[in-house]
Amino acid sequence: MGELKVVNLGLESFAENLRAKGAAAVQVRWKPPAGGDTAMIAALDRLAAGAAVDVEAANLEAVSRILKGKPTLVDVGVALEVIPGMTKTTILHAGPPITWERMCGPVRGAVIGGLIYEGLARNREEAEALAASGRIRFDPCHHHGAVGPMAGVVTASMPVWVLENAAFGNRAYATFNEGLGKVLRYGAFSEEVLARLKWIETDLAPIMKRALALHGPLDMKNIIAQILQMGDEGHNRNRAGTSLIIREFAPFLVRLGEDPEKIVKVLNFMNGNDHFFLNLSMPACKCTVDAARGIEGSSVIIAMARNGTDFGIQVSGLGDRWFTGPASMVEGLYLPGYGPKDAAPDLGDSVITETAGIGGFAMAAAPAIVQFVGGTPEDALAVTRRMYEITVTENDVYRIPALDFRGTPTGIDLRKVVETGILPAINTGIAHKDAGVGQVGAGLVKPPENCFKDALAAFAEAYAR
Amino acid sequence: MGELKVVNLGLESFAENLRAKGAAAVQVRWKPPAGGDTAMIAALDRLAAGAAVDVEAANLEAVSRILKGKPTLVDVGVALEVIPGMTKTTILHAGPPITWERMCGPVRGAVIGGLIYEGLARNREEAEALAASGRIRFDPCHHHGAVGPMAGVVTASMPVWVLENAAFGNRAYATFNEGLGKVLRYGAFSEEVLARLKWIETDLAPIMKRALALHGPLDMKNIIAQILQMGDEGHNRNRAGTSLIIREFAPFLVRLGEDPEKIVKVLNFMNGNDHFFLNLSMPACKCTVDAARGIEGSSVIIAMARNGTDFGIQVSGLGDRWFTGPASMVEGLYLPGYGPKDAAPDLGDSVITETAGIGGFAMAAAPAIVQFVGGTPEDALAVTRRMYEITVTENDVYRIPALDFRGTPTGIDLRKVVETGILPAINTGIAHKDAGVGQVGAGLVKPPENCFKDALAAFAEAYAR
Repeated sequence: MGELKVVNLGLESFAENLRAKGAAAVQVRWKPPAGGDTAMIAALDRLAAGAAVDVEAANLEAVSRILKGKPTLVDVGVALEVIPGMTKTTILHAGPPITWERMCGPVRGAVIGGLIYEGLARNREEAEALAASGRIRFDPCHHHGAVGPMAGVVTASMPVWVLENAAFGNRAYATFNEGLGKVLRYGAFSEEVLARLKWIETDLAPIMKRALALHGPLDMKNIIAQILQMGDEGHNRNRAGTSLIIREFAPFLVRLGEDPEKIVKVLNFMNGNDHFFLNLSMPACKCTVDAARGIEGSSVIIAMARNGTDFGIQVSGLGDRWFTGPASMVEGLYLPGYGPKDAAPDLGDSVITETAGIGGFAMAAAPAIVQFVGGTPEDALAVTRRMYEITVTENDVYRIPALDFRGTPTGIDLRKVVETGILPAINTGIAHKDAGVGQVGAGLVKPPENCFKDALAAFAEAYAR
Repeated sequence: MGELKVVNLGLESFAENLRAKGAAAVQVRWKPPAGGDTAMIAALDRLAAGAAVDVEAANLEAVSRILKGKPTLVDVGVALEVIPGMTKTTILHAGPPITWERMCGPVRGAVIGGLIYEGLARNREEAEALAASGRIRFDPCHHHGAVGPMAGVVTASMPVWVLENAAFGNRAYATFNEGLGKVLRYGAFSEEVLARLKWIETDLAPIMKRALALHGPLDMKNIIAQILQMGDEGHNRNRAGTSLIIREFAPFLVRLGEDPEKIVKVLNFMNGNDHFFLNLSMPACKCTVDAARGIEGSSVIIAMARNGTDFGIQVSGLGDRWFTGPASMVEGLYLPGYGPKDAAPDLGDSVITETAGIGGFAMAAAPAIVQFVGGTPEDALAVTRRMYEITVTENDVYRIPALDFRGTPTGIDLRKVVETGILPAINTGIAHKDAGVGQVGAGLVKPPENCFKDALAAFAEAYAR
């Protein structure tokens, strides 16, 4: 009889015990699909056995629309005038739908700020009473073609960037980034915050609108392709993007014939805030991914978003239905004086960047981001590499130099997420849990697994034969 | 007798033959020092046996001065007024000293253009006659604290950036980058080239001088640290650097109260030329490295430069003496319609960036550069890693995210270059060999080995006991 040679599958301790006894044992790296969740395995099996429509073909159609997308900055408008379905008493917020009662601290803070900004309330108490009264309609940004970072609050008078997907004609909207520190999107609503919002409305936005009109439509796809060669990933690192926007617009700002001090203030504002670009990359991603909505039989995820209470996803083949789970806590680095106990759960629509294949999915392009969100440059490479396992394709324009110009992982396939247990990688800012404070850090967050499983169950229900 | 097991050193074919016969043979990767050059081995041995001064200590002093350097943009001036030793009939050029007779095509072209620009000649023929007459003094930029990309021609009326090493008080100078295409530095001297130089003199430089005065001194060390996180290496990739300069100066340009169309033209000029930053990174490196000149016993290289005919180096402990070898041909990528037969040999002072530890030495920070100079991103990482073998230290401020924020390899030790046979990695533009044409490509170049060997022989002569 020959020597005992064992190939072990499953619990590694069996192999370890054999090795301890001197026997040769090889451990096979294998995990059961869906972490062994029998309901999920059944759903995956039913889909694999043959769906009512061709899921693979539907997904290829979805990603082909994403790749064809031509996000273009075309205008600056006022929310009430340009966002479909907007009213004077509507407040848009980040993430899936939520009631005032269930909103987290920073979203409440931003709603309070928004109501005071609109003149619908004079102070916190009035705003809270009004918000609770039922006379304000709360609606997700995503339901109106909009996206908002962190609290994501958009009110009627706020100016918004207007992006158009030139390949499909659909539009997306986002407010102007307010900068760092005490800002509405992190739930701050002090006078300083409201005064800045007013200046954005009266000065910054009209000036940028005129400069953009002189400049003509700006091809955001080209800009995003460039920033990925310049150390940005378009979500939490936007220094290159903001720089390119400034150099693109500076000559046109000078040409406006405007009071030079106003132009100086605009330039200083952009120069002083490296996240100025975030509120352009987000709607660029939104209008790109929206073109892949509602494709019969597609399991591609076309929205991920958080309201600080719930994390939600939408799937191309499942209409506008949200699948939600509890918003997670973010693992990351904190600003001096703050720690995990101060943090609100995961918040904001900025995960639209990951949904479109940049942001956390393109971290390999932005190794310096780890100084902001934690980890090592090697981790950043690993994050991007892992995302290829849950996506349908690779972008043909957005390329990552450090991965030998491989395209960014694009088109998250719900089935792959559940089967592999690999959750989408998201990097994000961390808001203070209380209304009125602001940002306390940044890091990486794992979305709740159950929303993907619930979505897969619904997908199998809808499409498995 | 046991089995034959061989450890082979030297010619690998011995080991291969043994392996072919079934014997175990291990090949040791070993090369004789200095490629087996006995004169060089003797020089290295004499130095290792004990030098008249402590070379290690002298080199640590040299790199400590380089690391302490604070390159700062302080002013814009006119060459005649600010560059020490400049006269109306002096023409500064790149590289080590060279006579008109030995100058390559593009340097001759730039000299012709410079003489016409100065009004010293009316056309090519007059310029060539004057250049050959002995009435023009040709001098290396490096002899006047200046550096010039490619031909590097500086004439009396040209405006120059004035950089100061705030830690040591020494200054460096460089002209304004003219952009791409037909430009003086690549040897073009058509009317278009001369008109642009005139505009730089009458508009761009005075405007930037006033903007800089409003802005105050600009910390270039901080900017260079940032660009290395943004995909630039400061020699052949300068998109981030140029972007940061634009966003830094735009508000101050607006404040000048100047004719808006002039400001627009300045902004468009900078926006249209990603190498605008090169002529700032070069003097920043020059004033940094110059502080390490003339240290008794130091084998740190404090200048590398090429005039298209000769490649030359200077060594800290050997005064201002040049050691030269024939300028090499560049291996790289060519613009459409051009090939190696069109190329002039290696040219320009821009290798001051590598001398200071950025440029080719920091290619790992700029993986996208391979689209311009050839190779793969993995090659770019390998180039930087190899340079640690011939340098004394690592920069404490200039860090490379992809190498886990390791500092750039800094302070080239002449002894290590000769001992290992690893030549400094240089990336560079390629000029057309004929006067008047311009850039035809970009790539990587190997400097001639003999100048390093000659310098080592002189160093041993000067310092070995």
